[in-house]
Amino acid sequence: MALPPALDVSSTCPLCEPTPHETLWQDHDCRVVLLNDVDYPGYCRVECLAHVKEMTDLDKAQRVHIMSVVFATEQAVRQVLQPSKINLASLGNKTPHMHWHVIPRFENDRHFPNSHWGETMRVHMAEPLSAHQKQQLKVDIIKALKTEA
Amino acid sequence: MALPPALDVSSTCPLCEPTPHETLWQDHDCRVVLLNDVDYPGYCRVECLAHVKEMTDLDKAQRVHIMSVVFATEQAVRQVLQPSKINLASLGNKTPHMHWHVIPRFENDRHFPNSHWGETMRVHMAEPLSAHQKQQLKVDIIKALKTEA
Repeated sequence: MALPPALDVSSTCPLCEPTPHETLWQDHDCRVVLLNDVDYPGYCRVECLAHVKEMTDLDKAQRVHIMSVVFATEQAVRQVLQPSKINLASLGNKTPHMHWHVIPRFENDRHFPNSHWGETMRVHMAEPLSAHQKQQLKVDIIKALKTEA
Repeated sequence: MALPPALDVSSTCPLCEPTPHETLWQDHDCRVVLLNDVDYPGYCRVECLAHVKEMTDLDKAQRVHIMSVVFATEQAVRQVLQPSKINLASLGNKTPHMHWHVIPRFENDRHFPNSHWGETMRVHMAEPLSAHQKQQLKVDIIKALKTEA
């Protein structure tokens, strides 16, 4: 890919800080973190390292690279968790620093078929990821990125 | 891009039908439609023509192409409407046929800073798009796609 954007940081942006989450994969442009969300245990986030607001603030090569990481994460999450559906989203209304939500959805999860930002549909106790599943996510992201290259 | 996927259709899928919405742009793989959402007048959707469920069901060239249309739509929406933020999302829990939401968000819109699937924050009467703005979206999508090629 092209040279990464200048690593602009914002002193008030939580995503410009070192992440408090487990990092599954990282390069010079972005990191994949596992949120360990209690309702959505395999919920990952792909975070640009630079403080960039919109995808169209990046050049094409940078966009293709970020999306290849998003899709490698999707692939790994599908392999490890076999969800009913994958949800992908880049909102950033509260934190305008480019990040992608990669959310495995199941028909019995808390909000399905609504957005996980929408109305709750049921109580559901999700099983936390095992250490093996976390390790497998790391392995499968690397494997999926090789086929993206 | 590579050859498009076989144009699988599902007899029960609304996105396999001809669209009821205004089409801003279309090729052999996908179409960009304007939803004319009363709360979000510039809300566009990029819809794959084939009945494909996940982005990772497509090959890499197909993914890059679909995303280049999503980003061209984002670019056009930014130019015409100058929103505070762009929201991009591919959910498909209710309609598992690949489509991308491209939503211009404003600080005074109905849900900001929440997801537009989330809690309502205020009453807001949004101005419908003018015929000129619709035409400009069409022109700007084509222009942005040229720089994506």
